Amino acid sequence: MAQKFQTLPGFRDFYPADCAARNYLFGQWRAVAKGYGFVEYDAPILEPTDLYKRKSGEEISNQLFCFTDKGERDVSMRPELTPSLARMAAARQRDFKKPLKWFSIGQFFRYEKQQKGRLREFYQFNCDILGESSPAADAELVALSIDLMLELGFTAQDFAIKLSDRTAWSIFIEQEGIETEKTDAFLQVIDKLERDKAEKLDEKLAALGTSLTAVREFIDSGVAEEKCESLQQIMAELDARGMRDFVRIDLSIVRGLAYYSGPVFEVFDIGKGMRAIAGGGRYDQLVKLIGGVDLPAAGFAMGDVVVTDLIRETEAANQLLEEDVAGETLDAYVVIADEKQRKEGLQVVQRLRENGLRVNFPLTAAKVNKQFQSAEQQKADLAVIVGSDYPQITFKTLAKREECSCDISELEDMAGKLLLS
Amino acid sequence: MAQKFQTLPGFRDFYPADCAARNYLFGQWRAVAKGYGFVEYDAPILEPTDLYKRKSGEEISNQLFCFTDKGERDVSMRPELTPSLARMAAARQRDFKKPLKWFSIGQFFRYEKQQKGRLREFYQFNCDILGESSPAADAELVALSIDLMLELGFTAQDFAIKLSDRTAWSIFIEQEGIETEKTDAFLQVIDKLERDKAEKLDEKLAALGTSLTAVREFIDSGVAEEKCESLQQIMAELDARGMRDFVRIDLSIVRGLAYYSGPVFEVFDIGKGMRAIAGGGRYDQLVKLIGGVDLPAAGFAMGDVVVTDLIRETEAANQLLEEDVAGETLDAYVVIADEKQRKEGLQVVQRLRENGLRVNFPLTAAKVNKQFQSAEQQKADLAVIVGSDYPQITFKTLAKREECSCDISELEDMAGKLLLS
Repeated sequence: MAQKFQTLPGFRDFYPADCAARNYLFGQWRAVAKGYGFVEYDAPILEPTDLYKRKSGEEISNQLFCFTDKGERDVSMRPELTPSLARMAAARQRDFKKPLKWFSIGQFFRYEKQQKGRLREFYQFNCDILGESSPAADAELVALSIDLMLELGFTAQDFAIKLSDRTAWSIFIEQEGIETEKTDAFLQVIDKLERDKAEKLDEKLAALGTSLTAVREFIDSGVAEEKCESLQQIMAELDARGMRDFVRIDLSIVRGLAYYSGPVFEVFDIGKGMRAIAGGGRYDQLVKLIGGVDLPAAGFAMGDVVVTDLIRETEAANQLLEEDVAGETLDAYVVIADEKQRKEGLQVVQRLRENGLRVNFPLTAAKVNKQFQSAEQQKADLAVIVGSDYPQITFKTLAKREECSCDISELEDMAGKLLLS
Repeated sequence: MAQKFQTLPGFRDFYPADCAARNYLFGQWRAVAKGYGFVEYDAPILEPTDLYKRKSGEEISNQLFCFTDKGERDVSMRPELTPSLARMAAARQRDFKKPLKWFSIGQFFRYEKQQKGRLREFYQFNCDILGESSPAADAELVALSIDLMLELGFTAQDFAIKLSDRTAWSIFIEQEGIETEKTDAFLQVIDKLERDKAEKLDEKLAALGTSLTAVREFIDSGVAEEKCESLQQIMAELDARGMRDFVRIDLSIVRGLAYYSGPVFEVFDIGKGMRAIAGGGRYDQLVKLIGGVDLPAAGFAMGDVVVTDLIRETEAANQLLEEDVAGETLDAYVVIADEKQRKEGLQVVQRLRENGLRVNFPLTAAKVNKQFQSAEQQKADLAVIVGSDYPQITFKTLAKREECSCDISELEDMAGKLLLS
């Protein structure tokens, strides 16, 4: 008895039904990005580990799939795309007209503790605008994320955007007299506002010279919304697109990573579990840090795991997915009713395939009713029956059970007519 | 000055033009496989190293990207798909009606010496039929590989199929009195027939009780073709499909790997460099070896690197690729001729995108002629001009430079009409 092999923990097999659902999501990601004039690119799945340390500091290596390759290089399976994008954009930025509007769909790897919505391998849609410092680029990205959610079948009852700007906190920092070099430390505390206990937060904030009360008052006051120009412009642009109602300004969103430098946002689900479905923001210094070239940039990413969970939980969205997957069927199943006509059957298969149809047939002799069962299981639209009355061919539509016949010379015409009707 | 990061040797960046060419190939792979009634699946990029050792023996680890993960597991980035497929098929074979016709498109990793046509990362199209022992399945796979090459724009002048069957050599083994337990060793010599020197081959063959002359005579005699039933059936089925002329029986093809158990074939280029473009064969024992389930199987794989080289070298094939890539353009570029109308411009952008069009526009103020330049560089079909005469909108087709205007209420209708014409 052979040893049973299993997939590694946190890794997935994609059997045909799972693969079709995955490809549906890829298709929607791709279609909406192209609708916004973005072009697709990709980067290596394996990169030098230093590329990730440069951006995120040493602590990221805790969750890297990193190793030493046979050439003694310290390498990592990519945990995210932005460092590779920064490297690529910096290396060839002169070849492209600004702004670059680039998207990518690919797989990523993080050695994390497994839990719902978190695996060790996942797909991510990355969408970035490089070479444009105006908040108009941020607005374009937020709009894209909204249209993507709508395209997936979600409504304003299912999701909303939390929009913030890291620089809005400079108003507070000035008002409270916090030392500017402590800005990062301060934002790290804000990032934990919804997760840490009040006592712990207060303690940390006191050390920085302020308090939880002052922070909460600032958030509630709406001062930032009034005074922060980037937030105002983003809201105005979203208003012009009819998307104002999807967006809530929420300064508690600062997105953990230190490299964000301006507006940041999250798409989150408001119906089911308040999960973050996508997120991103402006990172004007990262391309310089990694590639030595000044190139302002903003972007966001959406993973496949949480959004697929949400699709499955949301009736309208799930129905769109199911309809798309169900549409992946055969056009015709060629029934070889008499083995003496197998050769002619193969010719029919070949002619229909050459005509662009998706065609299956029994590889070996099988009873006619078994063949019809196969045609139905594979959701063929048509059965094309080749038998002893050849060169006469009989067609049967599997939905309405309508039957008709024609001479072999009319094969393609008749199949085309029946598939259109 | 920041350190310059570079891609690892043998790994590729896919800038937009490269990514479009890659996606063209993926699209052709997918379309032809679906035309043959195959369904798509995928497996993890990282698997337990033992999975690959079980199939290919210890020596494969020389070219594995293998390492110990943070959970002390010995893991490898996949060098091929077949072991994962065997694992998956064995685990759930009862859930699927036989035969399974499955295909996959994914990335693979081998730590190899770099040379033309060989990288350390590559994409591969894998196509397998499981649960069918008849040579009809092998014929279906060969036919698919031929139709794929034709679909890519190649002709009988560019490629041919070398078809063989490992069992055909049993006629020779019996005739020469070679001990049957030495069959594998014998086939290893045959596998090197085109690469090793005559002297070395003769020496090895003498040790097995035969000679190079006897081998060459057997190949030239056509005995195998006459007596090997599987080869006869495959040829008859390909003949029925009108594909006889693409195929050459060539017993020197045995495909190195020990697990092939019957018919084997290669697609190779006959015009340029006699390279193998794709290859595969029957492996009836592998699913049992890996998953403990008896499931006859046959399949083949095509990598992206060699076939893309060949496309680039072959005018008709390259033209198909270029046309496909060039078709990836914008439908409309919205020209904001007067910044006072930016809000209305954004509304126009949004309405056209909601109507399914691919639309771009200037994120910030730009001169009108600059905007037209952008529209042309991005190969937009239409310029949609929003200016001071709003609610009047002006359209300009960029190919024929035709102009017309309409009221904003007719926006979608007019855009639709112009894009169809």
